[in-house]
Amino acid sequence: MVGQDSLINRVKKTIKKYALLKPKSRILIGVSGGPDSICLLHILNQLKDEYKLQLFAFHLNHQLRGKESDEDEKFVKQFCQKLKIPCQIKRAKVRKYAKQKKLSLEQAAREVRYQLLEQTRKRLRCDGIALGHNANDNAETVILNLVRGTGLTGLCGIPPIRDRIIRPLLEIERDEIMQYLINNKLTYRVDKTNRNPKIPRNFIRTKIIPQLKKLNPRLIETISKLSNILRQEDSYLNGLTDNVIEQIRKERSKPGITLDNKLFLSYNLALRRRVLKSLLPTLGYDKIEQILKMSEEKTVGTIQLTKDLFARQEYDRIYLGKKVPIPINQAIPIPIGKSSLIKDMGIEIEVKLKSKIDLNSVKVDKNTEVFDYSELAPPFYLRYRRPGDRFIPFGGQEKKLKEVLIDDKIPRRVRLCLPLFCDTKGILWILGGRRSARAPITPKTKRFLLVRIKQWKDQTPRTV
Amino acid sequence: MVGQDSLINRVKKTIKKYALLKPKSRILIGVSGGPDSICLLHILNQLKDEYKLQLFAFHLNHQLRGKESDEDEKFVKQFCQKLKIPCQIKRAKVRKYAKQKKLSLEQAAREVRYQLLEQTRKRLRCDGIALGHNANDNAETVILNLVRGTGLTGLCGIPPIRDRIIRPLLEIERDEIMQYLINNKLTYRVDKTNRNPKIPRNFIRTKIIPQLKKLNPRLIETISKLSNILRQEDSYLNGLTDNVIEQIRKERSKPGITLDNKLFLSYNLALRRRVLKSLLPTLGYDKIEQILKMSEEKTVGTIQLTKDLFARQEYDRIYLGKKVPIPINQAIPIPIGKSSLIKDMGIEIEVKLKSKIDLNSVKVDKNTEVFDYSELAPPFYLRYRRPGDRFIPFGGQEKKLKEVLIDDKIPRRVRLCLPLFCDTKGILWILGGRRSARAPITPKTKRFLLVRIKQWKDQTPRTV
Repeated sequence: MVGQDSLINRVKKTIKKYALLKPKSRILIGVSGGPDSICLLHILNQLKDEYKLQLFAFHLNHQLRGKESDEDEKFVKQFCQKLKIPCQIKRAKVRKYAKQKKLSLEQAAREVRYQLLEQTRKRLRCDGIALGHNANDNAETVILNLVRGTGLTGLCGIPPIRDRIIRPLLEIERDEIMQYLINNKLTYRVDKTNRNPKIPRNFIRTKIIPQLKKLNPRLIETISKLSNILRQEDSYLNGLTDNVIEQIRKERSKPGITLDNKLFLSYNLALRRRVLKSLLPTLGYDKIEQILKMSEEKTVGTIQLTKDLFARQEYDRIYLGKKVPIPINQAIPIPIGKSSLIKDMGIEIEVKLKSKIDLNSVKVDKNTEVFDYSELAPPFYLRYRRPGDRFIPFGGQEKKLKEVLIDDKIPRRVRLCLPLFCDTKGILWILGGRRSARAPITPKTKRFLLVRIKQWKDQTPRTV
Repeated sequence: MVGQDSLINRVKKTIKKYALLKPKSRILIGVSGGPDSICLLHILNQLKDEYKLQLFAFHLNHQLRGKESDEDEKFVKQFCQKLKIPCQIKRAKVRKYAKQKKLSLEQAAREVRYQLLEQTRKRLRCDGIALGHNANDNAETVILNLVRGTGLTGLCGIPPIRDRIIRPLLEIERDEIMQYLINNKLTYRVDKTNRNPKIPRNFIRTKIIPQLKKLNPRLIETISKLSNILRQEDSYLNGLTDNVIEQIRKERSKPGITLDNKLFLSYNLALRRRVLKSLLPTLGYDKIEQILKMSEEKTVGTIQLTKDLFARQEYDRIYLGKKVPIPINQAIPIPIGKSSLIKDMGIEIEVKLKSKIDLNSVKVDKNTEVFDYSELAPPFYLRYRRPGDRFIPFGGQEKKLKEVLIDDKIPRRVRLCLPLFCDTKGILWILGGRRSARAPITPKTKRFLLVRIKQWKDQTPRTV
């Protein structure tokens, strides 16, 4: 057990170690009225001059425990008045929010609390939000995450600092906080729902931790040190992961993500798992393993990850993305003599008919093709491929369109939403790719059909 | 619950996933007679043909439970006979070993078991040792390590393969093993000490895990997956750590280790902690933190780590090493005209007197000095520094020897075991460093004293 002075000094050590406070900061303190937040408020109030702090308090009345909630509110108000700290009171309909968002009451209360804290911080132009989490809360979180399933990140527990939130009591144990309150004759409110063992965290606190303490009386401190080590290792690995993502992510793959699988495989398995977990944070262990296996075995195929999400591997690439509606199946008429913008295909195309053309001045590139108009069967269309499409590549023999695309190593998801320029007899040009052998320009050509892609936005893959 | 076929298939998956077995291997199976090892033996026997295995069994009679131990031995013998697997029986005096080594009975039994297993493996020229650890054992280890204090490594649980040891049942739960035994009408021996809740592992198994399963019925599987992730991350970080150690470790610092602190600080904190933990594996969290802090703050000083071990920082170096006896305090006489090997100082020195010397042909380098013999006061000595030593550096003024060495940035631990070449009047040469202003060579010099270091092994630091 540690006395008052010593506790303040230990809080100061935590503040220094994690650089929690800059001098002259404006700090908003979340105060429930329970032991932790009362202790935090009292200690920060004592450090106010030394750190040149401006303190504000925030209390959220969750209105979950009727009269008791109101008495908590009153208690916090009075305590802040005594310390002359301005206090913001908010009320929230947590029950309603929980219903709307389909959350447990605890989870809903948490979300509402953090949202309102951040709103209030902004309004008061505060630099940070101080919360009263202690070393026991941290140990409970670690054990809870271990039990429920987590990677390294979950075992890191509660961070002492994240974004605007700081937790100066994070290395102090609950017993020490209680002793501090006694020494300073401070009263606090007791939330009886904290004892309900049906809430998992309470179960860990009341049933598991006392048992584990029989094996190691310094359990809370032990886990606190563990968290400290793991947080650094986790954050280091996160940094490496971000670098890898930057390296292996291919351009032009919105709205999904395309990874270069050869490069991906050049990284350590631990990093590869983290890359996937970082890109697809909601995914469970088994799905991540499946993608890793597909990548390692270089299997061409698709893994359904969730209802919407899929992973697809083809031609040394892994595509991670959303399944979206089937492609438009109709053909879009393309008039001659003007620009047509087809929003659904993300394409703007211009078709011109010319009687004379200087072939040297027309830049025939990926975005331009020219046909002998006399050989064509207008009107012209733009459409996606259809089953049974056939195609005569320039200089080649007639084939299934599918085979042509496969020969050209066009990834499946691109094949399915590749616009085709057609006349009534068939496909003339695979946009951005091969043209048909039909209607070639010859010395006899008198009327030239000039087709030009003016704009082409990378399109959502329509399906897998 | 999983049936027989399915269990074998799952074991095969584990074997494949971690590459546990090569075809045609000779495998020694550790068999206690309990459910796990009986299941393992039975399954490997079924996989024998498919994997072309040669199986051997090993049983250690710990002789800790009198008649019961002997019955276990008999049971294992008979079971192996039935399967026609050659069985090696060993007996060990675990109680005696525990006393000698001051270990708990469990720890002693474990050490003896692993030693004898490895001996037997070598004798039978086996490729691997298969042990029956299951997913529950792994979960128990993870929780036990979490409670007792560990870094990431402890949370990795039991490795499926390490050196020669393989654990094909590591991803199978105890319940499934029991079901397999029932399905196959296999009997097994029960070790009643496994129920003693005073043994921490048993406490975790019987008191903690059943409680945690209320929060997550798939706890064992959950922890198994966690271990798998953490093992990969841990092994990745270990690889990086080894690379860092190679980079920052300075040459010529045996028997301790000298690190380049500038370079050390250029690495991430997580790696720095791992470097120290890897170099000083027995050290606890707080000591490692102290070294990290010393390194970060570039404080010159010494940290006592254990009774023998210390860490010392000076001149951008961190020295980690053992405290060894105080330096020899006497002076070693060095005769003229021959080579003297002073083993304690790790030095071989040659002193010659010459009447004529071609100064151009004598290479005066770090290993050689020349004095005017007429100015000297023989006999000559080699000794370490003593408190109050004074010195006139060549071309300088008389000073405390200590100050001269500090000015020259000689690290403290080197200062303490730096041999000094002296005559009866004082120090003539700091070996490998400055010479005294006394007895310079002049045009009048007629007799030259030539001192040459023939061999100089880097010496143990004598003290801090």
